[in-house]
Amino acid sequence: MNPAIARLKPYAFTQLGAQEASLRARGVRLLKFGVGDPEDETPAFIREALIAAVTPAGRYPTAAGLPELRGAIAAWISRRYAVTADPEVHILPANGSKEALYNLAPLLLDGPSAGTTPQAVAIPELAYQVYGDSALLHHAEAIPLPLDGDWLPDLNAITPELGARLKLLWLNFPNNPTGKVAPLGYYRDALDLADRYNFYVASDEAYSELWYDRPPPGLLQAAAPRGYHRAVVFNTLSKRSNMTAYRSGFIAGDPELIRVMKNVRPRMGVATPEFIQRAAVAAWEDETHVQAQRARYAERRVLFLDLFRRKGVQVEASEGAFYLWVRVPETAPGRDAQRFAERLIEHGLVVLPGSFFGPRGREYVRLAFVPPLDVCREAVAILDRVL
Amino acid sequence: MNPAIARLKPYAFTQLGAQEASLRARGVRLLKFGVGDPEDETPAFIREALIAAVTPAGRYPTAAGLPELRGAIAAWISRRYAVTADPEVHILPANGSKEALYNLAPLLLDGPSAGTTPQAVAIPELAYQVYGDSALLHHAEAIPLPLDGDWLPDLNAITPELGARLKLLWLNFPNNPTGKVAPLGYYRDALDLADRYNFYVASDEAYSELWYDRPPPGLLQAAAPRGYHRAVVFNTLSKRSNMTAYRSGFIAGDPELIRVMKNVRPRMGVATPEFIQRAAVAAWEDETHVQAQRARYAERRVLFLDLFRRKGVQVEASEGAFYLWVRVPETAPGRDAQRFAERLIEHGLVVLPGSFFGPRGREYVRLAFVPPLDVCREAVAILDRVL
Repeated sequence: MNPAIARLKPYAFTQLGAQEASLRARGVRLLKFGVGDPEDETPAFIREALIAAVTPAGRYPTAAGLPELRGAIAAWISRRYAVTADPEVHILPANGSKEALYNLAPLLLDGPSAGTTPQAVAIPELAYQVYGDSALLHHAEAIPLPLDGDWLPDLNAITPELGARLKLLWLNFPNNPTGKVAPLGYYRDALDLADRYNFYVASDEAYSELWYDRPPPGLLQAAAPRGYHRAVVFNTLSKRSNMTAYRSGFIAGDPELIRVMKNVRPRMGVATPEFIQRAAVAAWEDETHVQAQRARYAERRVLFLDLFRRKGVQVEASEGAFYLWVRVPETAPGRDAQRFAERLIEHGLVVLPGSFFGPRGREYVRLAFVPPLDVCREAVAILDRVL
Repeated sequence: MNPAIARLKPYAFTQLGAQEASLRARGVRLLKFGVGDPEDETPAFIREALIAAVTPAGRYPTAAGLPELRGAIAAWISRRYAVTADPEVHILPANGSKEALYNLAPLLLDGPSAGTTPQAVAIPELAYQVYGDSALLHHAEAIPLPLDGDWLPDLNAITPELGARLKLLWLNFPNNPTGKVAPLGYYRDALDLADRYNFYVASDEAYSELWYDRPPPGLLQAAAPRGYHRAVVFNTLSKRSNMTAYRSGFIAGDPELIRVMKNVRPRMGVATPEFIQRAAVAAWEDETHVQAQRARYAERRVLFLDLFRRKGVQVEASEGAFYLWVRVPETAPGRDAQRFAERLIEHGLVVLPGSFFGPRGREYVRLAFVPPLDVCREAVAILDRVL
């Protein structure tokens, strides 16, 4: 077997699901603020678009997807970022962004060669597990990029030595788990480095539409004036439109990389059923439901922010996404996230220890305010008692 | 970029689609007997099962899938092959069998090491393109296994030298493109070799339900008495239930490999939407629609067999699947499949030149009798004129 498999950490969410199932089996009622899985309804017009597209006879979907879907994505990018992307040149649909993230490395990596230094993939030291797992499984070295005091991956850590073997830099804003948003200049700096050292910047922007102040910038804005050279963005309808169940997202950026994907991805089995693509067209064409969803999250978020402020608990970063990045209180034993999360779960409140994402998170927990408002109120009441 | 990408052949079906689109744009009406994409309706009860499962709020599906789906697959395997497979130990759902085929190699291959002989994947010399492309992209050497006079991959070609570096042997019966069916003993021989040389036997059984005489044996029957050791089977609803549009299949076999897949596949983004899994449960639980579909194909098949017999054109193998493997008539220039197929397309009839699948197919065309009976009659009339 691939020797990298033995080096994979257990897949966190699979593990967490098993733990929660075991608690529920013991009769514990759990308020689930752990996994970032939206609980609100997929808007009815999107479900209806899917159902209307279930035709009596279907056909193999293609990896390039329906022209209507690529067009709807291009139009959305133009409205959202005020840049122009050509649906035939810069855009591909994804069968959910996770497969697209996972399937990037095998395009860019040569595979290992004994006796030579392995190729490197740079990943923020706190990050979604798939970036690193894909690098490992495809025989690259995953290099954790340290986060600076402001929770931004420190681009200065990309030294000439690392740059020489770096194939790919992963970014993710609004960030999971910290909720941090990056300024436009940060993306520009990353692309400057990419040009200098000849690597790709991959930006996972799954949470781009979950913001509470102003829309965060994205890599496409920084990359458009450069012809999207060395930039690749992944986005999804999962969070924006409560469509985790549908598996639909997009890939946009570097025309040469998109050209290669158009050649390779039909072999990967990643084409999305056309009835889902039709639902996706409807979803990308509408912003009203996204505004409504943002308003729902904003209401829940404020509940927790008020409570933590009242209790003197520090909330850091947490500018976007549906996460709060909460510092474990000084009064908690060892300020240890794992023990603190275990204490909360005894009271029925599930949050993720930040250590889950990397050692740098050991004094933080991630609270995903995805349950409905009444459940958020219950959670606030629990925190009010425990803190 | 991955250097293997430059060595990939164009993806045949993408290329074919472009060629057909260009002919249609010129106003040519094409009868499509090229791609093996079922044209008949997905049974209404399956579509209804999907629609009933589109709930207002959905969740992330899991790679392990719904217990109901694994159970329905296990029950189907038991009915079909009279063997017992444990849904928790031997079975996983696939997001269409193509992704599962593609994603097998990265589990089994180490990746290349400079200066050592590359690991090998053995593939029938005429085969579906994905087996070899996945091997290449994951840095293995794809070794074409010669077909014997009876169109079976010659297992004697697995010499000790090849065996020493062989990680995986691909089989596919009923075969694409030849329609050949293998006897049970052939699978046993393959598993004996796998034990001797320590490789896996992967069997793509996408066409297992399309037969015209008796149900063909499958690898699971040969592997069950061995605890499914070193065997992995891929099947799909695409052909059996006219569900190419849905992307739903399964993986079954070796418990250790399934255990590894349960660990790795959640990271690959291959979970299938639950509404599709619900449709799949309905499909695996019913055989009536499969019998009806077989009858439809049998009726079309006989039309062509009669015509070819009448014209003295040889049809070889062609025991299962919806393919006829037709020898280019002696009278055709150079007995060349490519030129013969081009001549047919000028008359509006699309078939695939066998050379598409490998040099061994250069005197054959593959005719996929997927269009409805009236279109088959038109195609027969064209062949009657041209031959």
